Amino acid sequence: MSINKPTLYTTLSPALLHLYDVSNSVVVIIDVLRATSTIATALYNGAKSVIPVDSVSRCIELGKQIDGITAGERDGKIAEGLVHGNSPFEYPREFVEGKTLVLTTTNGTRLLQMALDKGAKEIVTGSFPNLSSVCNYLLESKQNVILGCAAWKDRVNMEDMLFAGAVISNIGNHFSINCDSSHLAETIYRKAEKDLFGFMKKNNASHYHRLMGFGLEKDIRYCLTADGADVLPIYEEGKLVVK
Amino acid sequence: MSINKPTLYTTLSPALLHLYDVSNSVVVIIDVLRATSTIATALYNGAKSVIPVDSVSRCIELGKQIDGITAGERDGKIAEGLVHGNSPFEYPREFVEGKTLVLTTTNGTRLLQMALDKGAKEIVTGSFPNLSSVCNYLLESKQNVILGCAAWKDRVNMEDMLFAGAVISNIGNHFSINCDSSHLAETIYRKAEKDLFGFMKKNNASHYHRLMGFGLEKDIRYCLTADGADVLPIYEEGKLVVK
Repeated sequence: MSINKPTLYTTLSPALLHLYDVSNSVVVIIDVLRATSTIATALYNGAKSVIPVDSVSRCIELGKQIDGITAGERDGKIAEGLVHGNSPFEYPREFVEGKTLVLTTTNGTRLLQMALDKGAKEIVTGSFPNLSSVCNYLLESKQNVILGCAAWKDRVNMEDMLFAGAVISNIGNHFSINCDSSHLAETIYRKAEKDLFGFMKKNNASHYHRLMGFGLEKDIRYCLTADGADVLPIYEEGKLVVK
Repeated sequence: MSINKPTLYTTLSPALLHLYDVSNSVVVIIDVLRATSTIATALYNGAKSVIPVDSVSRCIELGKQIDGITAGERDGKIAEGLVHGNSPFEYPREFVEGKTLVLTTTNGTRLLQMALDKGAKEIVTGSFPNLSSVCNYLLESKQNVILGCAAWKDRVNMEDMLFAGAVISNIGNHFSINCDSSHLAETIYRKAEKDLFGFMKKNNASHYHRLMGFGLEKDIRYCLTADGADVLPIYEEGKLVVK
């Protein structure tokens, strides 16, 4: 470890975010199943921007005001009052190109709002579909990093920790890491990396069962595959746009 | 999984304890380095009881009132105003037998107090030195279980997660576990179990470095070894006593 390297921390739940200094860091919002995978996909497919909002009512209101696509989920299903859900497959180029998506989700958009409220220096979103873009950006920006797992209603989950581990496994040696959560995430990822889907299944990940119960195996497999929508969503003036 | 099995959850930080229903569970307080290892050791060596308190001033006051041994640490060192620290080696039989220890620590006793305040049904303490006693008790009691990691100032740590994983690895199949933290803990433990000390060292566990910096390798090795002080400390009427 060099004192000249920027620091990297991983927070495994939004309820632990307050322990870290976001004002001095790039915060990576991680909600692998499925918010941040869907955000990357919509932007990769040409959406103009994604506006994250923290309530269904705000989503509907803003959607009307700007003629945007209102989308979101609560407890893994399309939220009442919204037309579109949180599946990346709902946002192919022919549907989403040039449009603005207004999105609200159980965990991911909530964590983004928290990071914003706490004065995060910069916010980007990360998921396996845009793993390389996230890693490249963090390397180039040479700033302190906080990998923020959205978890599930504040409970630690497997897939967000796996993504944090993937980032650390790729670029961790460029950072000073004094953070057990980060080291644990990397260890878990290295054990799982050959077959992330199989690892989630074998280890009874709660979200694996929740989404399989909704018939969403295709979503899970896509959301665990690297670089299928390799753009960097960055938060600027209230919107996530491609950097 | 059977619906007749009791549930088991793992909370990786005191800041996540509120997500779980302690009122219906046995809560295992886990502070491997070193509070719960020291508690097991003192009781194993014949201490009458260990009274956990949440402040140094309360520790000093109570110590005088009951003529107890006042002990505790803040940030890994003996707390100012106290005579004894948080090392299991400070409590051999010839010193501690028949005596009462009044103990305050940075993380472990604080979590115990939190579980108590939230109305935990039952509280026991767990550490590698009393791993078998904890597992046997949880098996016999057939109640819901919450494995509560004391962590480090609310930040997730490696050693407490390893102990949670050790318990789950031993008796997890007797419980219904829908909890990613538990599955992650078990995975980490199975990877580490052949050489816990080596695993902590290789993966740069923060507490490994903190205690090594104080010259406490012997403490770490003892605290990562199973069944060296195999008793079950249970909280009854304000005191931890041997069940």
